[in-house]
Amino acid sequence: MTLSTPELLDRRARLLGPAYRLFYEQPLHPVRGEGVWLFDADGRRYLDAYNNVASVGHCRPEVVQAIAAQAAVLNTHTRYLHEGVLALAERLLATMPAGLQAGDGHAMFTCTGSEANDLALRIAQAHTGGTGLIITQWAYHGVTAPLAGASPSLGPQQPLGSNVVTVPLPLRAPHSEIGPRFAEGVRQAIATLAQRGLRPAALLLDTVCSSDGVLTHPAGWLNEAVNSVRAAGGVFIADEVQPGFGRTGEAFWGFARHGTPAAPLVPDIVTMGKPMGNGHPVAGLVARAEVLAAFGRQCRYFNTFGGNPVAMAAANAVLDVIEREGLQANALHTGVVLRQRLAALGRRHAAIGAVRGAGQFIGLDLVDATQGRDDGFAPAPALTQRVVNGLRQRGVLISATGPEASTLKIRPPLVFTEAHAALLADTLDAVLTELENAA
Amino acid sequence: MTLSTPELLDRRARLLGPAYRLFYEQPLHPVRGEGVWLFDADGRRYLDAYNNVASVGHCRPEVVQAIAAQAAVLNTHTRYLHEGVLALAERLLATMPAGLQAGDGHAMFTCTGSEANDLALRIAQAHTGGTGLIITQWAYHGVTAPLAGASPSLGPQQPLGSNVVTVPLPLRAPHSEIGPRFAEGVRQAIATLAQRGLRPAALLLDTVCSSDGVLTHPAGWLNEAVNSVRAAGGVFIADEVQPGFGRTGEAFWGFARHGTPAAPLVPDIVTMGKPMGNGHPVAGLVARAEVLAAFGRQCRYFNTFGGNPVAMAAANAVLDVIEREGLQANALHTGVVLRQRLAALGRRHAAIGAVRGAGQFIGLDLVDATQGRDDGFAPAPALTQRVVNGLRQRGVLISATGPEASTLKIRPPLVFTEAHAALLADTLDAVLTELENAA
Repeated sequence: MTLSTPELLDRRARLLGPAYRLFYEQPLHPVRGEGVWLFDADGRRYLDAYNNVASVGHCRPEVVQAIAAQAAVLNTHTRYLHEGVLALAERLLATMPAGLQAGDGHAMFTCTGSEANDLALRIAQAHTGGTGLIITQWAYHGVTAPLAGASPSLGPQQPLGSNVVTVPLPLRAPHSEIGPRFAEGVRQAIATLAQRGLRPAALLLDTVCSSDGVLTHPAGWLNEAVNSVRAAGGVFIADEVQPGFGRTGEAFWGFARHGTPAAPLVPDIVTMGKPMGNGHPVAGLVARAEVLAAFGRQCRYFNTFGGNPVAMAAANAVLDVIEREGLQANALHTGVVLRQRLAALGRRHAAIGAVRGAGQFIGLDLVDATQGRDDGFAPAPALTQRVVNGLRQRGVLISATGPEASTLKIRPPLVFTEAHAALLADTLDAVLTELENAA
Repeated sequence: MTLSTPELLDRRARLLGPAYRLFYEQPLHPVRGEGVWLFDADGRRYLDAYNNVASVGHCRPEVVQAIAAQAAVLNTHTRYLHEGVLALAERLLATMPAGLQAGDGHAMFTCTGSEANDLALRIAQAHTGGTGLIITQWAYHGVTAPLAGASPSLGPQQPLGSNVVTVPLPLRAPHSEIGPRFAEGVRQAIATLAQRGLRPAALLLDTVCSSDGVLTHPAGWLNEAVNSVRAAGGVFIADEVQPGFGRTGEAFWGFARHGTPAAPLVPDIVTMGKPMGNGHPVAGLVARAEVLAAFGRQCRYFNTFGGNPVAMAAANAVLDVIEREGLQANALHTGVVLRQRLAALGRRHAAIGAVRGAGQFIGLDLVDATQGRDDGFAPAPALTQRVVNGLRQRGVLISATGPEASTLKIRPPLVFTEAHAALLADTLDAVLTELENAA
């Protein structure tokens, strides 16, 4: 017997308490997933254009089969020898630029992106002797206590850590100004830390700035800031939990788009998570051997479930699918088509502002057209909520991002096709038209 | 092709780096698990008397099937409605004493015990306004930065947090002194925090003191300390990551052994993990509604994989097996038999000191018999290492615990039987006899 939505809401509040939130004014109750689709209890299907966890498609059979097969044979931990964890480490290190590959870099495994970022901070602090942390103004990096204190996007009630300084992100500045202005902000943050008597441990940066509103261009915009933090003794942690695993199309990792073959950008630590096991809890990091050395001398690391054979089987199966089906190339191609369609919509809907993105990671600004769209960014958060909920009513799932909550965040599974992109754009067109007609 | 152990060790050091550790002088390379057994690449079987994760048996078919079935249908997150998370929350709350059941308590879900303890600290700090944390002298609570700083058993290179005070645990004192002496230590810790200008947020206590050397008796020993921390404005967090889910035999949760029907011990927060999904990464906590309220007002909580349908299916299947097979009662019965056998061995081996424990959570002191076993505790860490490795060579897997590394930690899957207990005891007898003859 399936409970009704009001009954589920009542039970949820009673059993799970006040800290949980649901998506959408009319919450979704999916009971089945397949590819890019979720199906609710009434059999209605929804195009999932937001879920970067089910990156190779909901309930991808190859991944389900890998999990089931390994779970039936062995599932222990990394204090015993097992080839699965070594196979995955080798494959991940092979995706890295020179300086982070096997021999120069090491892989470590956790269960969640939060644990990966938390471990990265411990490694950075052991290496640098500093404690200061530099992040973007509306960053999200995780839910452990140190990371909640480094996630201003959790809201003003969540205080930042005393070791944390935020840097304004010139998201909508002319391309030529973004890099210099962000780097100048990082240098000011280093000075602020110094005033507090702190040395920088790390610049921790989501390489597409997911929660800040999605910043992907110009390529290389973050490099000067990385140089500045290194000059001050800190390291660069690329938080790839959202952009990683081919999503940005042009590269397997978000940071790699900012280097060139002649001058690759090489982070000191790369953290990863969400899509890594297509929903199975698996995450981890890759660190330069030199950066990991101090932590390795001081601390042992053990994560009960991290790196276990089932998690490794899931992650290896995800890599198999991405490689075999060329999903990074698909993300590049479909992303271009989708952004073109969204930009075309912008010529007919005054509320559509800038469309940013790389591959299948897209931010679309909704603006208050009455304020004049050429006079900077006039955010429209109420409209954005109406659009997100209107899309859900019409069977398309996305969400919003950015400090003004006025940017649509579009982040579909990598198996998204041109037809899905067309359905998404057409539905957005219909929602905006309906809202315009009602205004 | 299976790699040899030296080849695996080389690859591991190269790929995973310096922070990982292996069990045993001759590391184990299991390739298959079933029930209480692990099988290595050569087909040799090992009695697993240490693994409390595979609590209902390695590769338990009902759990594997539940994971496989749910993974094939839907695996999303708690921002959509799903009945699995509600069903599990309801069952867990029903295992709690009055004051923590549905309506009075709420359940929240994470992926690891570390995440559960980290969240518990955030909740305790939001509720109390204090930041101080009181733990036992050789505690282990997890690997996030705040918890590594509250885990002295990670070793002296891992500094404790400036908000953390440890309390000596009178593990081998006469039973009548344990409670009063520990409570006095907690009151001194509260005073130490006050000298640092800090108020206590919580007493965080593994309710069997797993890493301190296993302390289970007398029942009620921790209650006076709990009263003292509450009188100072702090809360009591029962860390049930190791003792929970029936292992202690007398109760489903370790803390519950310390209450009576007339006067139950009711923690403010109960954290749980390891055996919860029989190897699947699932963990969580239950908190008094009143204690969770401040966190709920200030913060939202989302954990990408925490509470997802597959994790909930695994945890529900584990509860099914524990209930259907009476595994808590089995832990009680087998634990008694095992401790009797170990105590009997003590009459023939001078190196065997005290045997402590409840259900299938047992600590056995190994002592330096040349120092006289009646003159207090003369630890024998070198002997303990030889015994742990000697057991491994003879096909029985356990480990050691305690600040002196001189206590055997015996913590078998709940499906352990009398025959398995006999094999463990007989093998320990043989190892000790061999070491005595070689001395």
